[in-house]
Amino acid sequence: MRLSNRRIVLSARPVGEPKAHDFSLEDQDAGPLDDGQIAVQVRYISLDPAMRGWMDDRPSYLPPVRLGDVMRATGVGRVIASRSNAIEVGDHVVGYFGVQSIAIVAARDVRTIDIDLAPLHVHAGLLATPGLTAYFGMLDVGRPAAGETVLVSGAAGAVGSIAGQIARLIGCTTIGVAGGAQKCAYLKEECGFTHAIDYKAENWKAAFSSACASGVDVYFDNVGNPILDAALARINQGARIVLCGAVSQYNSTAPVDGPRNYLALVVKRASMRGFIVFDYLDRYPEATKWLTDAWRRGDIHYQADIVQGVENFHTAFLRLFKGQNHGKALIEVQV
Amino acid sequence: MRLSNRRIVLSARPVGEPKAHDFSLEDQDAGPLDDGQIAVQVRYISLDPAMRGWMDDRPSYLPPVRLGDVMRATGVGRVIASRSNAIEVGDHVVGYFGVQSIAIVAARDVRTIDIDLAPLHVHAGLLATPGLTAYFGMLDVGRPAAGETVLVSGAAGAVGSIAGQIARLIGCTTIGVAGGAQKCAYLKEECGFTHAIDYKAENWKAAFSSACASGVDVYFDNVGNPILDAALARINQGARIVLCGAVSQYNSTAPVDGPRNYLALVVKRASMRGFIVFDYLDRYPEATKWLTDAWRRGDIHYQADIVQGVENFHTAFLRLFKGQNHGKALIEVQV
Repeated sequence: MRLSNRRIVLSARPVGEPKAHDFSLEDQDAGPLDDGQIAVQVRYISLDPAMRGWMDDRPSYLPPVRLGDVMRATGVGRVIASRSNAIEVGDHVVGYFGVQSIAIVAARDVRTIDIDLAPLHVHAGLLATPGLTAYFGMLDVGRPAAGETVLVSGAAGAVGSIAGQIARLIGCTTIGVAGGAQKCAYLKEECGFTHAIDYKAENWKAAFSSACASGVDVYFDNVGNPILDAALARINQGARIVLCGAVSQYNSTAPVDGPRNYLALVVKRASMRGFIVFDYLDRYPEATKWLTDAWRRGDIHYQADIVQGVENFHTAFLRLFKGQNHGKALIEVQV
Repeated sequence: MRLSNRRIVLSARPVGEPKAHDFSLEDQDAGPLDDGQIAVQVRYISLDPAMRGWMDDRPSYLPPVRLGDVMRATGVGRVIASRSNAIEVGDHVVGYFGVQSIAIVAARDVRTIDIDLAPLHVHAGLLATPGLTAYFGMLDVGRPAAGETVLVSGAAGAVGSIAGQIARLIGCTTIGVAGGAQKCAYLKEECGFTHAIDYKAENWKAAFSSACASGVDVYFDNVGNPILDAALARINQGARIVLCGAVSQYNSTAPVDGPRNYLALVVKRASMRGFIVFDYLDRYPEATKWLTDAWRRGDIHYQADIVQGVENFHTAFLRLFKGQNHGKALIEVQV
């Protein structure tokens, strides 16, 4: 059996915003399996802002994607061939499958998933890196208590919307910051945020101050400045700032805009802490069970924003940085 | 008995660097004691960078000094009159006595000190706020383990020199940053730092990188940028940045220079945390015992930089920001 694999290769290091010519579309035969490997028919490919960092040639928590290699991405799919005793053909799995239609990976590098519990696209977002990131970032780093006020930026995004809902479920007042009236309505009506702030509105600072009138105990930061400095000006004593990333800075070729109000951390005895979800690998089962249960009870709203076809990677990826996605950005692979 | 009190009053809110005309020297009769109060003949007045913040009219961890009030400062002295059963005439005490020669304060607001354990000027620095700040900031916030690398800025200052020595005593490699060859020699020869970096030297960044070759596990930050960004570029995974203050920013009228490299906190799963020593009030006895024992064993070098006379407050205070003090800055009150 010969199978054709359609894939996106990183062909140049982007400067600032990635351009179409930084990537190449290739159709090739899917290679043979080595011992211990499986072939996965990828169904959904996750598009995440962190992928921008993986395109740069500098040391980080994962090695840079090499030029000529398939672009790294997580995904979900079905096993179509296996040379492993641990994984069977027909199993559904999640893993680093890359931006391609057929991935050949080591069986030990994937997790099997139960599609009776939730459909595949939910496994690709809520129950994959975005949901896990929200879960550990909020509960392990932010540690909000019932009754506290939790601020989330990038709140309509895949991570932010889940992070805010987790805080709501443990009894917090939740304030979401997002761009545009439509996203803000989504935050309040679908995700149950207490307040939603449209940072693209002219009066956003006044609305922000008013929503944060009793201060911020946990700030889950997905975007960096200018929201980070506004949040620092509003933190309560002992506040925890969870640094999940900084979408506003990823494509920037100018120096990063550092938080000028960071000395509020001294006055308020507060902390700012970064984390990487991979460090919680051994606790993924706990988190996926919690998130699955909450989703099945209807307590967590989750929505995917699906673009068709591997070949549309570049335009679909850029939508993340323009704030054009409404829900978890996925590519659906046509089979 | 009528006693004359010489004091420094805050007469205007400083803009940027405090000017002489922001303060007034007053000689007045020391008033009578109320029930529960004591009169303290102040011997040493502590000069600390944090006092600059207390001069501003904005909310902080302590209320601003009011215009017309004596400038707030900690100090040590001897009780010369008492209307309290808890404190006797002749006791030595430490407390918020202000920049003045005779302080009338509530007995419950002071701590008695034992001058048989250490001379009075040691109680004013090593065993007062600077030493306590170093102790809790390093051990409770920074939490270095033996074998880790600890970086301290403002390392020749009252807090930094003690913080670095505490880290050395628990088995860390210590790197001190200070301004000038003389201070750097002091760090290595008197305080036992492993490396000393002169940030006023032209090649300081190269020397810094070389000293930090194996990364930084704890950074005890007294100064802010540019050292903070240099440190962020060198942190190891799981590093802790202790925000003690930012001398470089206190007098600045320009916007604070925020740390552009703060996203290293994400990649390195690191934290940046502020603290205020007053929150550890109930653990002061533990800390003063530890510091006293270490000092008496000769394990901690401590040096005071003493200026004579309350009337010299303004010039003595400015020396802190010019890096002109060599050791803990104190005013000795002439009796």
